Amino acid sequence: MYKSLKEEAYEANMEIKRRNLAIFTWGNSSAFDPDKGVFAIKPSGVEYDSLKPQSMVIVDLEGNIVEGKLKPSSDTKTHQVLYREFSQLAGKSVRGITHTHSTYAVAWAQAARPVPVFGTTHADHCFPQENGTNEIPCTDFMNTEAVKNNYELETGNLIVETFKKRNLNLVQQNMILVAGHGPFTWGGSAAESVYNSAILEEICKMAFLTLAINPAANPLPEHIIKKHWERKHGQDAYYGQ
Amino acid sequence: MYKSLKEEAYEANMEIKRRNLAIFTWGNSSAFDPDKGVFAIKPSGVEYDSLKPQSMVIVDLEGNIVEGKLKPSSDTKTHQVLYREFSQLAGKSVRGITHTHSTYAVAWAQAARPVPVFGTTHADHCFPQENGTNEIPCTDFMNTEAVKNNYELETGNLIVETFKKRNLNLVQQNMILVAGHGPFTWGGSAAESVYNSAILEEICKMAFLTLAINPAANPLPEHIIKKHWERKHGQDAYYGQ
Amino acid sequence: MYKSLKEEAYEANMEIKRRNLAIFTWGNSSAFDPDKGVFAIKPSGVEYDSLKPQSMVIVDLEGNIVEGKLKPSSDTKTHQVLYREFSQLAGKSVRGITHTHSTYAVAWAQAARPVPVFGTTHADHCFPQENGTNEIPCTDFMNTEAVKNNYELETGNLIVETFKKRNLNLVQQNMILVAGHGPFTWGGSAAESVYNSAILEEICKMAFLTLAINPAANPLPEHIIKKHWERKHGQDAYYGQ
Amino acid sequence: MYKSLKEEAYEANMEIKRRNLAIFTWGNSSAFDPDKGVFAIKPSGVEYDSLKPQSMVIVDLEGNIVEGKLKPSSDTKTHQVLYREFSQLAGKSVRGITHTHSTYAVAWAQAARPVPVFGTTHADHCFPQENGTNEIPCTDFMNTEAVKNNYELETGNLIVETFKKRNLNLVQQNMILVAGHGPFTWGGSAAESVYNSAILEEICKMAFLTLAINPAANPLPEHIIKKHWERKHGQDAYYGQ
Repeated sequence: MYKSLKEEAYEANMEIKRRNLAIFTWGNSSAFDPDKGVFAIKPSGVEYDSLKPQSMVIVDLEGNIVEGKLKPSSDTKTHQVLYREFSQLAGKSVRGITHTHSTYAVAWAQAARPVPVFGTTHADHCFPQENGTNEIPCTDFMNTEAVKNNYELETGNLIVETFKKRNLNLVQQNMILVAGHGPFTWGGSAAESVYNSAILEEICKMAFLTLAINPAANPLPEHIIKKHWERKHGQDAYYGQ
Repeated sequence: MYKSLKEEAYEANMEIKRRNLAIFTWGNSSAFDPDKGVFAIKPSGVEYDSLKPQSMVIVDLEGNIVEGKLKPSSDTKTHQVLYREFSQLAGKSVRGITHTHSTYAVAWAQAARPVPVFGTTHADHCFPQENGTNEIPCTDFMNTEAVKNNYELETGNLIVETFKKRNLNLVQQNMILVAGHGPFTWGGSAAESVYNSAILEEICKMAFLTLAINPAANPLPEHIIKKHWERKHGQDAYYGQ
Repeated sequence: MYKSLKEEAYEANMEIKRRNLAIFTWGNSSAFDPDKGVFAIKPSGVEYDSLKPQSMVIVDLEGNIVEGKLKPSSDTKTHQVLYREFSQLAGKSVRGITHTHSTYAVAWAQAARPVPVFGTTHADHCFPQENGTNEIPCTDFMNTEAVKNNYELETGNLIVETFKKRNLNLVQQNMILVAGHGPFTWGGSAAESVYNSAILEEICKMAFLTLAINPAANPLPEHIIKKHWERKHGQDAYYGQ
Repeated sequence: MYKSLKEEAYEANMEIKRRNLAIFTWGNSSAFDPDKGVFAIKPSGVEYDSLKPQSMVIVDLEGNIVEGKLKPSSDTKTHQVLYREFSQLAGKSVRGITHTHSTYAVAWAQAARPVPVFGTTHADHCFPQENGTNEIPCTDFMNTEAVKNNYELETGNLIVETFKKRNLNLVQQNMILVAGHGPFTWGGSAAESVYNSAILEEICKMAFLTLAINPAANPLPEHIIKKHWERKHGQDAYYGQ
């Protein structure tokens, strides 16, 4: 019944490995069907080489396992909270989430620093905010009570709250760093969410090197930020076929 | 009609991928025929693995598509402006341009810093300037008006103006960084332009590490800079067969 | 007689090479049988590509060669001292040790710095200490007398003493850096010990980058450290199948 | 006539490529026969993938081409000066030289800094000097006159003079950095010289990272330096079979 959803999630998870975005069993991708209100997600602690499409677990927005013999990823509740939020947005266009432990993105998350927009590689992929920048946000550290309460669910809440506090749009800004933990990305499909993870990793590596070469490096001027976004994603976008 | 030109451009684009100079659809190479006044360039937003020689697009120096079913690279106008400039130079010897998002070259471009000549790896490949150096130039950030006007065409103009302002020769100095964006390189063929991109990336990595090891590192003395250029490219060059 | 023990040690040594944790002949893994009081270890100075299961050397806890035609690793006495210690612990659950020269772990050892816990990647794999942290310990430099006395045996003693001085549990904390030398890791099997070496290398790379991005980066708050350990290894662990 | 010498040089050159110690045509290895007073060296400017054993060029200690259709490496005179020096040493035990442009070794050469001995990886491979250290030496920059006179021959002289000035033994210390240029290594065979190049590159990477983690990192204490050398290369060495 959920064959194509499982296959989509499986392919995204295998892409985590192919793109070297996590080692061993780290990281997880999921694929969401907003009409059925369920998502397919990687089982917990299983090596990528052992995964099969049928190992994916189907979970609903209340966290119930709808189908699957294995336990879902320990981060399942984070995906659940985010999909619940996404499913209330007009268009219901977010259909995939990926969490990795990719080296450079984790380093920025551990440094608890948002990633400044230093160049067009970044500007091409992050929606320009009203304040004239489009840095990749980083949450605060989660507080003691939230950790005790329901850690993975609260990770989702922390992401959503960070977006609200900073007036960011969850569809337009599809990457975030959770302080001390690592990156979460999403997109129109599971494949797009892992594509965004790979881009985030490259942006984070370039930003680290930029600061090492010039600790006083300036962000890209606002007019170039906007231009690069527009030409790739705006109304009159002319990138691609 | 343009079969060999397309094949040359195709091979150079595939070399971008083989040398890891860009991920996904980033980067583009073109091959120029100065007699016919046209160049073959990568189509916009197409993955390297999907490219074929016949996917290349033939464009003339006014930006008209002469042949090809796909939209050319969004950076086509930058190539166009540069080829227009190159075709007015004696010898018409520049016949290929490559633009990549290679990690270390982009980091220097984002740091908005010219790359100092710290060693012979650099000196072997960059023409010694009159001022006794041969740093790899970096443009200024493009101004608001130019971005609004015609962004990719103005990127070409920015490169040409930077060369004029610094009294650099477009044939001899075949690498430049566009501030906040990334590298452009050229050469006697599309293959040579991507070869120069690979060398630039290695020079940029070495220069980053040199500064990290010794923030007060001195540039290579002028007499060694000149010697290394001369032995590889001068009148009495004795490198190679 | 020791066929399966040799095979286990052989597989762990080959994993050192597959995970790029050492070049040439550097590094060594061993597999321990606490009932028989012997361990299988890599022969000294042999390239990984030439290893076979039958090249492994069987050594007892007094350092006698029980079986094998080759000389055991020059680090054999370090393994011997550690296994002697492990065999006195309740449960006798440590059955594998790995020593590598992996680049980032060696760099931290050379810097003679314990690795602070900057994130959940680290917290997932290191037992939280009573003092609320779980940094990866680094020994002092070995003193002149110990080096002259019996270098490799004293390396084992140095590790054990460092654990005692810092009140660390040898089963729970399964990674350490020997100052100026490199990492030693262990676990419930030879395979688990080399798995821990790979994780340590990734943690060390992330920690280097974290400090480079933010020299004032704070350690992960204690409540998140504990939560991540608990969810993966605690009584109510829910990670994995 | 020189078949085995050419094969030895060929294999060492191919190892430069396999170990990623140079890109394109950069770098060169040679194999020396001290009885015949000739060495086999890579031809100039030829890609590694096009090399064959018979492409190697046989050169004598006066720089005459004894056999071979191609021009020898532009660095041939540096090899020639070093072999002339080596052939006057008791034992005539140096029989191979390698020059690469490996990234981290070049970075230290460009930083014009000797590589401090931060750990046992380094101490295992570099002879301890009388002054209690065994840093990898770096030459001064070559002066104007020497560059004009006979650049590659003077590079050999610069290396030899650096050894004499610092009272270093050319057999025992088999690695050096030429300031602003890159590494030269040698050994008992061409294979051993390229092996030393690979080790030097790893030592240089580890030393860069050590300084980045702890800019005040101390060198390894003298008693550990000596111990590690002794156990691998001393009279009572016990490393290896």
